[in-house]
Amino acid sequence: MADDATASVTDRAHALAEAAVAGDRLALARVLTAVENRTPIAEAALRELYPRAGGAHLVGITGPPGAGKSTLVSALLKEVRAAGRPVAVVAVDPSSPITGGALLGDRVRMQAYAGDRDVFIRSMASRGHAGGLASTTTAAAAVLDAAGFDLVLIETVGTGQSEVEVAAAADTTVVLEAPEMGDEVQAIKAGLLEVADLVVVNKGDKPGAQRTAAQLRAMLAPSVGRSAIAAGRPQPKRPEVMVTTAATGEGVKELLAALDRHRLTARDGDAANARMTRADAQVRAILTERLVDRLGRADLADLRKRLVSDVAGHRLDPYAAADRILEAMTADAS
Amino acid sequence: MADDATASVTDRAHALAEAAVAGDRLALARVLTAVENRTPIAEAALRELYPRAGGAHLVGITGPPGAGKSTLVSALLKEVRAAGRPVAVVAVDPSSPITGGALLGDRVRMQAYAGDRDVFIRSMASRGHAGGLASTTTAAAAVLDAAGFDLVLIETVGTGQSEVEVAAAADTTVVLEAPEMGDEVQAIKAGLLEVADLVVVNKGDKPGAQRTAAQLRAMLAPSVGRSAIAAGRPQPKRPEVMVTTAATGEGVKELLAALDRHRLTARDGDAANARMTRADAQVRAILTERLVDRLGRADLADLRKRLVSDVAGHRLDPYAAADRILEAMTADAS
Repeated sequence: MADDATASVTDRAHALAEAAVAGDRLALARVLTAVENRTPIAEAALRELYPRAGGAHLVGITGPPGAGKSTLVSALLKEVRAAGRPVAVVAVDPSSPITGGALLGDRVRMQAYAGDRDVFIRSMASRGHAGGLASTTTAAAAVLDAAGFDLVLIETVGTGQSEVEVAAAADTTVVLEAPEMGDEVQAIKAGLLEVADLVVVNKGDKPGAQRTAAQLRAMLAPSVGRSAIAAGRPQPKRPEVMVTTAATGEGVKELLAALDRHRLTARDGDAANARMTRADAQVRAILTERLVDRLGRADLADLRKRLVSDVAGHRLDPYAAADRILEAMTADAS
Repeated sequence: MADDATASVTDRAHALAEAAVAGDRLALARVLTAVENRTPIAEAALRELYPRAGGAHLVGITGPPGAGKSTLVSALLKEVRAAGRPVAVVAVDPSSPITGGALLGDRVRMQAYAGDRDVFIRSMASRGHAGGLASTTTAAAAVLDAAGFDLVLIETVGTGQSEVEVAAAADTTVVLEAPEMGDEVQAIKAGLLEVADLVVVNKGDKPGAQRTAAQLRAMLAPSVGRSAIAAGRPQPKRPEVMVTTAATGEGVKELLAALDRHRLTARDGDAANARMTRADAQVRAILTERLVDRLGRADLADLRKRLVSDVAGHRLDPYAAADRILEAMTADAS
């Protein structure tokens, strides 16, 4: 019975994975839903799809709310499609309920590409434990990669630490910024700039855009480098600063060209590091999941409850209790 | 050599633990430092001290900044000492550097009891991972308990979730509040009230104090109960609401009497739950530490790096990598 159920999961996952690779978009959507919900189908499908992935260019796009990320992603889509290339978007929605604003935005965006099989847009809710978001997004990108999307844009809001980490784990990370009103560039957090391969000042038609870009170039070039050297850290990358007006498409062709350049030049450097970071986050998340699953198993849960009760009554010290649980976790694995 | 080092840690821990129990305050302070820094001495000492603990009354005192927690704790100390009872204070300092404000406050507070061996005041920095604070504070309380302090006050700022959890894991939890200026009780977060066994409106000489207390009583009595019943949750405890003026000592004797009452009546109910929660947090923290330690061991770190590199190169899927690491963790335990 259990074997039948397992076989059936593997069979269904196999069928979905094969269909997704063959171009069935509904099957692709189902695999992504499984990945998002961490169902058994997801693991089986990813085990099949993962070896077929690795070729796509993963581009993270992040920045503060209001910088125009959605508009820029739409403008990029238009440019990529004009070049005849397939493209997928994973939009990480910081609002927990899946029925939130981002999905609605997706539908509007998707309508523009209703008949276009080479565009695929998908929102992922950023719920779940720390590290889970990074691992889910990476898994989703791998699925899209295996399904033949050579360019995958990962759009996140650069507010939460985990959202920034997701974007930073891409091969190329674009940090978006709106023009500053005041004299100083205040709004960009140092943490955001640190992860940037490309800094884009969007809304280039606004008064302060060119000045903001100039200030960012000045900020990024000498002083960041000096402080890093003084602190003994490795020399940071010097991100290129560009100006776009996503609403009119101005500068977007140049941005795409810069992305393609970065893909080629960074293959062995930063991008290789990003790949290691991504893989490590994935393995760590799965490992944690496995350990938590194991702890939750009926026999271990019972043992744990009994031992914790002994600790609460001071009949056992907490180290001895932890060691006995660890021993049981270990013994049960064989 | 390794055996010698282990023996030496055990011997030193044994000597420190014995001295701490015998009343050596310097030894007690050293054990607490070891607990705070999670050194090997801490584990060995706690293993000895834990079975001797469990008798003390742990009282958590929390509330928003400015409610007068430090002043109230000082007033309580005075009252407890007037009754001839020994008392210890663990103050959880939310500022990370140990040299921060709270320690200075400790020295000032300690001076008032310079010659008094039956008062012990200790700050713990609230650094470290989630769950670590709760487990460190609980361990410190157990050490003070074993050292003969029959009453241990755990003072935390009720701002961070983990600080509130620490206070809530005590046998009796006191939530402190300052009188409200406006018409409505706004400042108290529902989360804070939920954990209270006793609610204390301090600064009772301020105009709004009695009104705030009355509003709190009205808030806590009927509606909280009804909504909980409607939601199918267990009937919540109805915390007693008291008014104190810590600066003059007004109402502090009554507060101490209420604490003693709660200690007796709640021994089998909420306090038993609190003991289970504390024990579970301790065991979980140690278990996590053990697993992280194991992952960091040279052989596993090497294996992990190799596997992650294979995952990054899409030569291996992340599930297979996680399973191989899990297998190695398991095999090495025997």
